[in-house]
Amino acid sequence: MTLPAKLLAALVSLAVLGTAAAEGPYRNPDNKSANDPGEGTYPVPYRKPVAAEITAALHRIRGYMEAQTPTRVVRKSTGAPVTDFRTPVKDAVMAEGEADFGLQVYEMGVVHAGMLKAAQVTGDRRFTEMTARHLGFIADKLPYFRAQEERFRLERANSFSRFLDPRSLDDAGAMCAAMMRARAAGIGPDLSQQIAVCGNWVAKQQFRLPDGTLARQRPQAVSLWADDMYMGVPALAELGRMTGQRSYFDDAVKNVLQMSGYMFNPQLNIYTHGWNANNPDAPQFYWGRANGWAVLTMSDLLDVLPKDHPGYPKVLEQLRRTLKGIAQLQSGSGLWHQMLDRNDSYLETSASAIFTYVFAHAVNEGWISPTTYGSIALAGWAGVSTKINDKGQVEGTCVGTTFASDQVYYYHRPTSTAALHGYGPTLLAGAEIIRLVQNPAFAIEHRVRTYHFVPKDGGQTSYREHH
Amino acid sequence: MTLPAKLLAALVSLAVLGTAAAEGPYRNPDNKSANDPGEGTYPVPYRKPVAAEITAALHRIRGYMEAQTPTRVVRKSTGAPVTDFRTPVKDAVMAEGEADFGLQVYEMGVVHAGMLKAAQVTGDRRFTEMTARHLGFIADKLPYFRAQEERFRLERANSFSRFLDPRSLDDAGAMCAAMMRARAAGIGPDLSQQIAVCGNWVAKQQFRLPDGTLARQRPQAVSLWADDMYMGVPALAELGRMTGQRSYFDDAVKNVLQMSGYMFNPQLNIYTHGWNANNPDAPQFYWGRANGWAVLTMSDLLDVLPKDHPGYPKVLEQLRRTLKGIAQLQSGSGLWHQMLDRNDSYLETSASAIFTYVFAHAVNEGWISPTTYGSIALAGWAGVSTKINDKGQVEGTCVGTTFASDQVYYYHRPTSTAALHGYGPTLLAGAEIIRLVQNPAFAIEHRVRTYHFVPKDGGQTSYREHH
Amino acid sequence: MTLPAKLLAALVSLAVLGTAAAEGPYRNPDNKSANDPGEGTYPVPYRKPVAAEITAALHRIRGYMEAQTPTRVVRKSTGAPVTDFRTPVKDAVMAEGEADFGLQVYEMGVVHAGMLKAAQVTGDRRFTEMTARHLGFIADKLPYFRAQEERFRLERANSFSRFLDPRSLDDAGAMCAAMMRARAAGIGPDLSQQIAVCGNWVAKQQFRLPDGTLARQRPQAVSLWADDMYMGVPALAELGRMTGQRSYFDDAVKNVLQMSGYMFNPQLNIYTHGWNANNPDAPQFYWGRANGWAVLTMSDLLDVLPKDHPGYPKVLEQLRRTLKGIAQLQSGSGLWHQMLDRNDSYLETSASAIFTYVFAHAVNEGWISPTTYGSIALAGWAGVSTKINDKGQVEGTCVGTTFASDQVYYYHRPTSTAALHGYGPTLLAGAEIIRLVQNPAFAIEHRVRTYHFVPKDGGQTSYREHH
Repeated sequence: MTLPAKLLAALVSLAVLGTAAAEGPYRNPDNKSANDPGEGTYPVPYRKPVAAEITAALHRIRGYMEAQTPTRVVRKSTGAPVTDFRTPVKDAVMAEGEADFGLQVYEMGVVHAGMLKAAQVTGDRRFTEMTARHLGFIADKLPYFRAQEERFRLERANSFSRFLDPRSLDDAGAMCAAMMRARAAGIGPDLSQQIAVCGNWVAKQQFRLPDGTLARQRPQAVSLWADDMYMGVPALAELGRMTGQRSYFDDAVKNVLQMSGYMFNPQLNIYTHGWNANNPDAPQFYWGRANGWAVLTMSDLLDVLPKDHPGYPKVLEQLRRTLKGIAQLQSGSGLWHQMLDRNDSYLETSASAIFTYVFAHAVNEGWISPTTYGSIALAGWAGVSTKINDKGQVEGTCVGTTFASDQVYYYHRPTSTAALHGYGPTLLAGAEIIRLVQNPAFAIEHRVRTYHFVPKDGGQTSYREHH
Repeated sequence: MTLPAKLLAALVSLAVLGTAAAEGPYRNPDNKSANDPGEGTYPVPYRKPVAAEITAALHRIRGYMEAQTPTRVVRKSTGAPVTDFRTPVKDAVMAEGEADFGLQVYEMGVVHAGMLKAAQVTGDRRFTEMTARHLGFIADKLPYFRAQEERFRLERANSFSRFLDPRSLDDAGAMCAAMMRARAAGIGPDLSQQIAVCGNWVAKQQFRLPDGTLARQRPQAVSLWADDMYMGVPALAELGRMTGQRSYFDDAVKNVLQMSGYMFNPQLNIYTHGWNANNPDAPQFYWGRANGWAVLTMSDLLDVLPKDHPGYPKVLEQLRRTLKGIAQLQSGSGLWHQMLDRNDSYLETSASAIFTYVFAHAVNEGWISPTTYGSIALAGWAGVSTKINDKGQVEGTCVGTTFASDQVYYYHRPTSTAALHGYGPTLLAGAEIIRLVQNPAFAIEHRVRTYHFVPKDGGQTSYREHH
Repeated sequence: MTLPAKLLAALVSLAVLGTAAAEGPYRNPDNKSANDPGEGTYPVPYRKPVAAEITAALHRIRGYMEAQTPTRVVRKSTGAPVTDFRTPVKDAVMAEGEADFGLQVYEMGVVHAGMLKAAQVTGDRRFTEMTARHLGFIADKLPYFRAQEERFRLERANSFSRFLDPRSLDDAGAMCAAMMRARAAGIGPDLSQQIAVCGNWVAKQQFRLPDGTLARQRPQAVSLWADDMYMGVPALAELGRMTGQRSYFDDAVKNVLQMSGYMFNPQLNIYTHGWNANNPDAPQFYWGRANGWAVLTMSDLLDVLPKDHPGYPKVLEQLRRTLKGIAQLQSGSGLWHQMLDRNDSYLETSASAIFTYVFAHAVNEGWISPTTYGSIALAGWAGVSTKINDKGQVEGTCVGTTFASDQVYYYHRPTSTAALHGYGPTLLAGAEIIRLVQNPAFAIEHRVRTYHFVPKDGGQTSYREHH
């Protein structure tokens, strides 16, 4: 390769990979032989992750999230703080950070899940402080914004509209699940009344197909979104756990299986983004993050679903099949593409982080084999870790994306550090990778320049033959 | 992303996309929010097309085609005009424009189809002037070149050889269909004798398999070409329409179904370029334009096939399956690749234009759902429209390509504005997209930064939930 | 296309293709029309290969191999030659060339196969000189290194350890087959005792699954490697030929079929790199070279398997299916990708060379049709030939690669001219391509700018129609 071509190849690979990889190429430090001709370099830090380094990265994200999510009420017109909460004013709103992360959006529900997981894995209670602060603020200011609504009828312009007047699964599900998880962990105030509101929306009020599948009235009059598995099912599952009522679990399982019936492609073992009742056999769009939501849903459900529930083996089997399909599409950088089946679409962080989490979690829970899948989880983290920058921002996440019908739209969705969708999954992934590298059920052997997850209860391996 | 990497990425995307996209990146003007962080940029003009702009582009093509297709007879040796048509001279030939577009080649048959469609959709009769001029010239000069042939036996060197002595479907079918369509539209002179000649070749004289499938004796002794669906079937279909004889329709339907039996890949839902009887289970080559001819054939046939013909639902089903397969392979620029299943092969205009036409036409005719497929047609036009340059040339079209047996050949077929194959399809596509955006059966909603085709007779959509 | 973009596109295509293609783009010299607008350029020399040029390239490789494989014993500490072979010294080792090609490694077994084939096809005995020299040296020095081992117990540090103490199929199979082939060709000394040692390892001592499939104890306690088809089966086949004992053929056939049962993907018609008993339904990794070993194994087996053996048609059918799958994945440069199904992984030489050899050989032997497959073999050689540099080195070969579980590892395996794996296959490919272009069973027609293999006993083709 001539020198300019070599330079160019490096630049191209940078360009395709995105920002953080600019720090590469990386040589694997686990190979102690400095001049091993059998060792190449990697565009991502291909190595066994070090728990302390992951924890440090998670704290950077935590710091950024804390700084970017003020819990204050201000006048929208002037930015001046509201101090009198006895009588509502029309332009009172929650203050916003630069990145404009909403405190009640579904993406923040995932962030809470990530923070709880990070606290649980590291034992560091600082990870739950933001959740406590947010939920405390919400509980504290709900009456004020309710009064504002009664007086001014602001509807969607009311900062608390998702909580006061949920209209969609996006408004209700993920934050509802977060409140129940925080409650179970003893974090934050009593939000049982709010849990009743959002839980009721998911369980009873959301538009559904006649067969009970959670649905939407857009973009067509009757549409399904694979994302809605996550927007609905984990809340149903947590309701089941909190109340002990089996009907919630039944509904959760039914939705996973029926949505899979409509949107899972059994040849590719991945999900199409959505389904329209008026064109049921349409071309499919394998958007990465929607597949992320699907597997995260099944993982969250299995976390709380009683093992004797008749749906348990079915959900587990569906998760296994999907994880096999997704594993098959991992890129050479460990990340996944915006469109899973298209290697000329960009590498997308949020989907990659969700997948990394679910692979690691499913291995840790014993749902899938550590063999092969452990390596895939590590490779995922090698990619995702490059997306956490020094400020604690998560880069390369596709912004909010609707269920569309053409590849031009999907390929060119912008990415932004202000896309909150990437933060929760990255926290989840990092925390679960710490569990993975500390899991006593298997050895992570670095042998012949790569990683092998060898179950401790399996037979003996031998490298006696290896020169 | 560092600045040089960013620049490089832009350059690379230009390089992959080709010429006209150099004008991008484009921001969607249908999004009126100037600083919407959820809106990115596109390498093609992703927007709802404006009919007047399409019409203007079609007129540019029309102007170029008119200028490049002189209807004059000259001496090949000197270029001097032939003025005495009483006694033929040996070196008299049709004059050629710079681009060397033949007046009797099959590609010109597609151009006539495009011009007729453009006239029909826009109501502008200027679009049929070239067809009238060509056919008038041909009718006028046929006796002269016949006399030249009788005297000098020039065979393929005779400018009118395709009409005087058709030897292949390429020589006969597409121009035959064009003459019948012009006749039905009352354009040009009476060419019934010539229609008899070319129609007879297609229906009776072309080499066939024992089962009646239209075939060739190259590159192997017994070969099928997917292209030959188009080279044969539309002529048979127009013969059926013109004569009212059902046997022509029977033959047309039989050929579509039998060719599909040999060359359609039911896993991918696309066609291989060709088939050799001496190696029937060979590796396949999913050349874009051959798939274009296949779907254009089915579309043209359904346009004239009586709805009560027993083959109608079968052809419709085969068209639907193929369109689903092709939709699944549309690139992120709206165009399709030279090899449909290979995203590292170049983006090719003629196939993309044919697909865009057939998607739009099939939606307009109600053969496929506007949901999803309407968006795919728009995305196709977003790509194809960038290939029409200021001179009215169509760029990026693969030159004439034989049925080959290796990817090195297919990947490196040159593209040229002198490849006439791109012009007719682009005219067809533009005209049909005008019909699409004016179709009263559905609304084209620009919602959440993309396009949704919502049938007017369907239920109600709701964005009440959407923040 | 703007000028910088054009330049960039050229550079990018260089970068993707690798070194030698820097000499392109190439115009096909078989097209005598110098300004044919229908002829493009190619990144590889797309043309009918000239036997004399291939032979010259094979001699360059031969020269490099001769120079890089000294047959001398030296002191490891000083490099000084060992001259006294009566009493072993502890640090006596085989001398190494710069490239460090081992004389007893399995890759050298393939080199011997390539040299024998080159001699056979060209009639030039110089191609067998290296084999004679190596085997003579080994026979001569075996007693010395055996004595060294008995005295110093060096195990893997003994230069002759693979021969003295085989521990794996890698140690035993390919060199064992090479010794038997040389013996059959009357080349080199009598190595029957050594053949007994390595043959016994393959047939009796190697770890196997309970069902008899040749297996390994790494990376998991019970693993299969597709590579092991080649590491074991050709030796079994040659044992069958040498001894006339049918049981060796039975074992060879059984291993091909059983390994295919575990590792062949019947949808894609290619092999995954390996299989672990503790995760039998794992994601798959379609590593190029492993597929190379698989098809080379079947080809080598069919070369010596009696045609009346009940396994013959089964092995032939399995080879045909695999070759169809591999043909389907050939790149636009004629080479194949490191990961066969991933066109963003690099183009890899050793796999490409093996495939080129097996396509050509299977056509020459009449196992597959010359139609289509002949063209694929030529395209393969167009790519592979660019990888032989002026020094006789073979470039672009992936270094030794273990059975791994993530794409990050596979995508970033370095390539090196010191990877011996590319040399034998390139010799085999070149020699068999000479046979192909001289094969009297078909004509290789250059028609309409590409190559058609037309069987001489088939019907007549006709280009009478072609303008």
